[in-house]
Amino acid sequence: MAVTPPEAWMARALELARRGLYTTDPNPRVGCVLVKGERLVGEGFHARAGEPHAEVHALRQAGAAARGATAYVTLEPCSHQGRTGPCAVALVEAGVARVVVAMADPNPAVAGRGIARLREAGIEVEVGVLEEQARALNPGFIMRMDHGRPFVRLKMATSLDGRTAMRSGESQWITGPQARREVQRLRARSSAVLTGVESVIFDNSRLTVRPEQAELDGVELIAGRQPLRVVVDSRLRLPEAAACLTEPGRTLVATVEGHEPERRERLEAAGAEVVALPADAAGRVDLHALLRYLADVEQANEVLLETGATLAGAMLDAGLVDEMQLFVAPTLLGGEARPLFQLAGIETMAQQRGLEILDIRAVGRDWRITARPERRTKAEK
Amino acid sequence: MAVTPPEAWMARALELARRGLYTTDPNPRVGCVLVKGERLVGEGFHARAGEPHAEVHALRQAGAAARGATAYVTLEPCSHQGRTGPCAVALVEAGVARVVVAMADPNPAVAGRGIARLREAGIEVEVGVLEEQARALNPGFIMRMDHGRPFVRLKMATSLDGRTAMRSGESQWITGPQARREVQRLRARSSAVLTGVESVIFDNSRLTVRPEQAELDGVELIAGRQPLRVVVDSRLRLPEAAACLTEPGRTLVATVEGHEPERRERLEAAGAEVVALPADAAGRVDLHALLRYLADVEQANEVLLETGATLAGAMLDAGLVDEMQLFVAPTLLGGEARPLFQLAGIETMAQQRGLEILDIRAVGRDWRITARPERRTKAEK
Repeated sequence: MAVTPPEAWMARALELARRGLYTTDPNPRVGCVLVKGERLVGEGFHARAGEPHAEVHALRQAGAAARGATAYVTLEPCSHQGRTGPCAVALVEAGVARVVVAMADPNPAVAGRGIARLREAGIEVEVGVLEEQARALNPGFIMRMDHGRPFVRLKMATSLDGRTAMRSGESQWITGPQARREVQRLRARSSAVLTGVESVIFDNSRLTVRPEQAELDGVELIAGRQPLRVVVDSRLRLPEAAACLTEPGRTLVATVEGHEPERRERLEAAGAEVVALPADAAGRVDLHALLRYLADVEQANEVLLETGATLAGAMLDAGLVDEMQLFVAPTLLGGEARPLFQLAGIETMAQQRGLEILDIRAVGRDWRITARPERRTKAEK
Repeated sequence: MAVTPPEAWMARALELARRGLYTTDPNPRVGCVLVKGERLVGEGFHARAGEPHAEVHALRQAGAAARGATAYVTLEPCSHQGRTGPCAVALVEAGVARVVVAMADPNPAVAGRGIARLREAGIEVEVGVLEEQARALNPGFIMRMDHGRPFVRLKMATSLDGRTAMRSGESQWITGPQARREVQRLRARSSAVLTGVESVIFDNSRLTVRPEQAELDGVELIAGRQPLRVVVDSRLRLPEAAACLTEPGRTLVATVEGHEPERRERLEAAGAEVVALPADAAGRVDLHALLRYLADVEQANEVLLETGATLAGAMLDAGLVDEMQLFVAPTLLGGEARPLFQLAGIETMAQQRGLEILDIRAVGRDWRITARPERRTKAEK
């Protein structure tokens, strides 16, 4: 009989992990399968913070069959006593013979100690099977552990001529219902949705996940975990009547020091949480400080940036955009309409900002372009 | 033995016709195969105006074998005495038994008379096999015959944020070498390249086909047939030193009446042909009149519009763009850079200009988007 390659079992574990895409936050998405000979004896995934890890689910399902089995786990088993017991210990105690891990845990509280603990117990451990795919599942968690900031995904809806709204600000709707469904899903997987106060003033968007519009299973679970809404508002201009302030979930207004306490208190009374952060040279919220705050205080893994040309451009200029999702509608809005990005200091072609386009696909009548900013300006190609 | 379906033979005839893509102008591209039983006995395509038509090549190759054969022709055989004898007569005289035609000839000098002539001679004629594919081969010829104007293909090179040049006008190069090769091929298949005087002043482009850069066979044939360069120049601002004036081929300067004769004469001395056309309400060259002129006087089938936001927008506004080819580079130029289109009278989303995207494909590092303007404004979708 042909032996199933480790990549096939790990692919199954990754598929399981993906089931937690919308719910594990702030934990990473993790999946696990237990295999004995050629037989799958247990499988599981992490569903929600505070609930058992993937390994625990799989071990429970396997019962006594776990003895002598191989565990395929998409992330290094934890070694620390978190809200659940350490998974490395659970695997040892269940008598698992071999553990295959897609990637080491970037969490400094684990960082190889889970693997070490398994090896100390005489368990054979292999690391790096489908590592790239495993990393792609948790870009935010990895970014937060490695760099102390969330992974930032910029989403914009644009016409084919690169326009996001009319001069008046009118923009509903450039893209069609399928594209808007995808945006709902992007929100649903994010820890936070980040926007500028101008966007809130213009669109009065609620910035919430409507699970029925996202067409996702687990509607109640997802609706119960609204991403944090973050409004960059250096001058505290957010209207108290803003729709997002009365939606389920929290709205954080990121501003700078020095505002009159009454203005801040009125916003807080209207439902906002206001945080004063360091200012940049121009007196605006320092974007690096904001992202550090979201990682450290809010444990934000993935942040969805949904905003206009000014904040989107500033985030790009600051090197703080990790991925772009452009939803391009087959329409033209003309040269007077609002641009995608205001970028600083581009006067010559040598200063253009290079991108790497990762994917283009049709979404209803629209097109979805996934791109990644290059880390340097592109002098030539 | 299975019988080869007529579509398969016609596909071969279309493939042959395509060999004339860059050379038949102002004639249509036409291919022909002669089949006896299941055997191909002759085939040919029209290569160049003044040379034999596709049917004549195929009949010559078939010789006596043409008797009793079926002819598959991508366009109705001509019935008039042009530069070569009428092909309908040649088919009759060769004793062809049956003729399958992809599409009737839109040329009023033929217009069904070729088919009638064949039928009068007792030949069975079938019309409409792969008609859509046959029409796609000759969009310009069909447009000129049906509507008295050329087919206009708008080509633009743009950044992902919809920008075609820096504020200074600098634009070389947004796209990579593969995209520029495709543009060379678009020029090579066109009867004329149309641009605005501003573009010529900024880029000093030569607007010629460099067959070696287009990576096409038949270099000499193609280089010998440079598309007509047409510069829209209502105020006669074209510099006499413009590079395009000294290139092989002709440069037509389209202007309005009322300029000082010396200015016009100086341009003519520098190599331009100047034509005064009716003016629109704003005193600029009337674009409808220009296209009628190019069809009637220059027999232009396909016109490639390579220009900036103003003329591109005006052509779109006038409903005179039949196809758009956007070459999109994976780069951002920012909100201060030059826009794709200046469009008149778009203030609300209801006035946006809808497009139909026909194709998106990678061209080196860039992306090529083929789209077609919808004929009405898109109130909603």
